Amino acid sequence: MHREAPSAIFFERRALRVVLASPRNPLNIGAAARAMANFGFSCLRVVNPYEVAFREARSAVGAAPLLAAAQEFTNLADAVADCRLVVGTTAVGHREPVHPLRRLEYGARLIRRELAAGPVALLFGSEKFGLSNEEMSHCHWLMRIHMADVHRSMNLGQAVAVCLYELVRDPRAAAARPEKPKRALAADVEQITAMLLEALERSGYINPVTAGSTRAKVRRLVRRLSLTARDTPVLLGMLRQILWKLGGPEEK
Amino acid sequence: MHREAPSAIFFERRALRVVLASPRNPLNIGAAARAMANFGFSCLRVVNPYEVAFREARSAVGAAPLLAAAQEFTNLADAVADCRLVVGTTAVGHREPVHPLRRLEYGARLIRRELAAGPVALLFGSEKFGLSNEEMSHCHWLMRIHMADVHRSMNLGQAVAVCLYELVRDPRAAAARPEKPKRALAADVEQITAMLLEALERSGYINPVTAGSTRAKVRRLVRRLSLTARDTPVLLGMLRQILWKLGGPEEK
Repeated sequence: MHREAPSAIFFERRALRVVLASPRNPLNIGAAARAMANFGFSCLRVVNPYEVAFREARSAVGAAPLLAAAQEFTNLADAVADCRLVVGTTAVGHREPVHPLRRLEYGARLIRRELAAGPVALLFGSEKFGLSNEEMSHCHWLMRIHMADVHRSMNLGQAVAVCLYELVRDPRAAAARPEKPKRALAADVEQITAMLLEALERSGYINPVTAGSTRAKVRRLVRRLSLTARDTPVLLGMLRQILWKLGGPEEK
Repeated sequence: MHREAPSAIFFERRALRVVLASPRNPLNIGAAARAMANFGFSCLRVVNPYEVAFREARSAVGAAPLLAAAQEFTNLADAVADCRLVVGTTAVGHREPVHPLRRLEYGARLIRRELAAGPVALLFGSEKFGLSNEEMSHCHWLMRIHMADVHRSMNLGQAVAVCLYELVRDPRAAAARPEKPKRALAADVEQITAMLLEALERSGYINPVTAGSTRAKVRRLVRRLSLTARDTPVLLGMLRQILWKLGGPEEK
């Protein structure tokens, strides 16, 4: 197992307000809350939810504490009032570019920087229509998840999960190298080779005429297997058992 | 709007096999398919699905073509047979580390590299139990999404979305800088300042005794607003209208 690089994340996750504008599906509200819990965020705000959906989501099993603490607002201005940066999420669609539109990889960097200083609101529009123009007008800029098919929209719960993942993503983890498993000792590799050659000998695999080149071939093959110290005793045990079953000259 | 950096992704998305082992919930199968469509992947394989779930998922609206083309297998070995690398996803849980366990940020790099050469299978276990030990034994290594709360598991559809997002994520997009909006011309800024001062004068805001310093203060304030070329005519129009309403000396 590789040891993980220390987290590069110094921002305050509690300072992020995940704001769902007019969500209609309790499964989506629940999924958003679950993704928040997964990635360590805690402040969920809901603006004008479809009441039945909100009630159902709250009563669902799972992310209960986070949902129970979710704050409900009747207008977006109140839901973002304590923030110095308000970022809306959007599919590309056919809107006029009246707002700066940033790709998630870049936008998340800006949000992280701002979160170190104070609250930031991250807005998600309703499942059906996304953010309205009025809702977008409360945003400093918009952010989008780059997709292969620009005409499709993302599921709300998945969009929340992907955005939060990018926020907590650790670039240093990408550069990390897992510890190499300990390679087998040459002595053990040679013992495995010898026992394998013995088994091949007793099985009649080795032609006496070409025996010399076959042995060299097998020796090279065994070295290409990159055997680990951990697997060596297992392989020796297997070969010992096979040699015993094959019979013949006393085993080594 | 910023112009996007050219994609750094050269791997073949068609070579990824997203393999769902024993999925039970049609919504999750649908969500996995939807995330695949979002991020441009096409090959979905399902091993021993709960039949009703698979049928329901196929008949659902949305990611229909991708799901209709999904291949069904009765065992995992067949589902990954054409791959040279098989990667399982897992929550950390309490398993013994019998497999190398890599964090998504790093694992995705290895998968991308391998995808350039040929098919790779990415395995997701059932919603309830994750991958079984038998299923994991088909994997070369395991990959996990780093979470704040290691005791929670992720929703299947969200986990698929996050993994695929990391695969197509473009590190160069994170470094991109959006184009700065064109700043306003000094002449326009000065005209705005002059009209604002005029409006303040006519409103009685400016005290004749301190007029000099007030004017300098207002001039500095207007320069701090980082006005853009685009907003200049709008602001001039507003001020012109206010001056007209305020009356007084002929407007400039």
